[in-house]
Amino acid sequence: MTAKPLILPPNPTIGVFDSGFGGLTVLGALLPLIPGAKYIYLGDTARLPYGSKSRETIARYAVSSAKFLEEQGADLLCVACNTASALALPEIEQALSIPVVGVIQPGAEAARKESSRSVLVLATVATTQSHAYAEALTSLGLGVTEKACPLLVPLVEEGWIDHHVTAEVLRIYLAEAFAEAPDADTLLLGCTHYPLLQPLIERTLAQMNHPMTVIDSAAATAARVAEHFAPNHAGNPATCRFYATDSIEKFQRLGTSFLGQPLAEVHLLDLGG
Amino acid sequence: MTAKPLILPPNPTIGVFDSGFGGLTVLGALLPLIPGAKYIYLGDTARLPYGSKSRETIARYAVSSAKFLEEQGADLLCVACNTASALALPEIEQALSIPVVGVIQPGAEAARKESSRSVLVLATVATTQSHAYAEALTSLGLGVTEKACPLLVPLVEEGWIDHHVTAEVLRIYLAEAFAEAPDADTLLLGCTHYPLLQPLIERTLAQMNHPMTVIDSAAATAARVAEHFAPNHAGNPATCRFYATDSIEKFQRLGTSFLGQPLAEVHLLDLGG
Repeated sequence: MTAKPLILPPNPTIGVFDSGFGGLTVLGALLPLIPGAKYIYLGDTARLPYGSKSRETIARYAVSSAKFLEEQGADLLCVACNTASALALPEIEQALSIPVVGVIQPGAEAARKESSRSVLVLATVATTQSHAYAEALTSLGLGVTEKACPLLVPLVEEGWIDHHVTAEVLRIYLAEAFAEAPDADTLLLGCTHYPLLQPLIERTLAQMNHPMTVIDSAAATAARVAEHFAPNHAGNPATCRFYATDSIEKFQRLGTSFLGQPLAEVHLLDLGG
Repeated sequence: MTAKPLILPPNPTIGVFDSGFGGLTVLGALLPLIPGAKYIYLGDTARLPYGSKSRETIARYAVSSAKFLEEQGADLLCVACNTASALALPEIEQALSIPVVGVIQPGAEAARKESSRSVLVLATVATTQSHAYAEALTSLGLGVTEKACPLLVPLVEEGWIDHHVTAEVLRIYLAEAFAEAPDADTLLLGCTHYPLLQPLIERTLAQMNHPMTVIDSAAATAARVAEHFAPNHAGNPATCRFYATDSIEKFQRLGTSFLGQPLAEVHLLDLGG
């Protein structure tokens, strides 16, 4: 969370940004919390995935996406992307004049409520290498192990969310992580694609006789965004406008499974490059 | 191959372009064929993968990469990327004034030499949706089935090139393909990442009691490039300069396994975006 002051417009415009579809899980958590808002969602799908790229490249991509949403009238920006939150939050905050909420700090605080010892964070290569979760969780007094899981995003995008290959990949990643962190009691899903795998992850943990509390940062992040706005009891319906930098058709098709409802009004956006 | 005339400089400069590392398998095939050349390789790693993106986005990225290599003095451009060759070859040819060689036509002709019936092409989503291989192989009188294999590139990049998960993914993709194309006798690797999986693919085919000739287009494409140049018997050593649009360190590390030798002199390049 930034130190910028709270803003309280009656019908706020909230920008939500991700490299792709995963941030729609955060938007899904925002809708019931701030029902009267106007949401503008940008998926930078032409340049995804961010998770395998360098800090400089991620920051350049994230800042251009964030600026677009501010120009569209956003009163607040929610960076619903773990990789961009982990590697580019200072650059985004510096480039904008509106409050910016990332997913790392809310996710870490949600883990703090569950864990008494140590947290295992599953995330992309870039997020783990940034050690943003390690810093946030350590400052809350918790032990941390970060595990990069580069195959999980492609498996989710292939639609193999309840598939024996995905289960085997999870077993391999989790076994490697447990070898390093046998005492971890909480599993933090540090990528907005991973909530779609939560049932399979919980089943795999049970089969490995290693039960853990599994949490994702979507709900915690949405709650943090809501702190910025006065409750709206007028009953205005939320509106959502979607922008994607690559194929609109693919965005509508994949996005529906992330948001849990059909996506209307997706616009193609050229951010250059 | 373009209709542009042959060019015969004594020490040609050859531009080789891919979205990432895979095109290094083509460069590896070029080095012994045209030993006296100066090679400039560009991996557009900041914007990879191309294979899951739309035609318009791929064309925009590919043209900017191709123009860079022409500006660096390339006498010929080899598009060592199946996706860019399949979706953007006309746009690239129109944007440049040097000859352009893609991988589709040479790959199809190499398959023609092996197949008497029907070819199974494994490739990215974008390449299969373009049907570029289907058009090229059909015009050579062959039957064709194109199978998208979106998980293979991430598995190669994870380094799981001899791994039981990759074998299982291959079995699933191949079984789906054989259900559609039971009489295919030749397997064409339609992505420059896939040659690294060739031993595992051949073992999997044997285990499935479905032996096929496996070919990749790297050697055929290199031979097509060599047709543009007079043989050089002067014994000049080849030089290679590498550009990547994302992390140089990752490019050097992963690139070594694709080229089969260490990569010297990798430069970071900003193509914007």
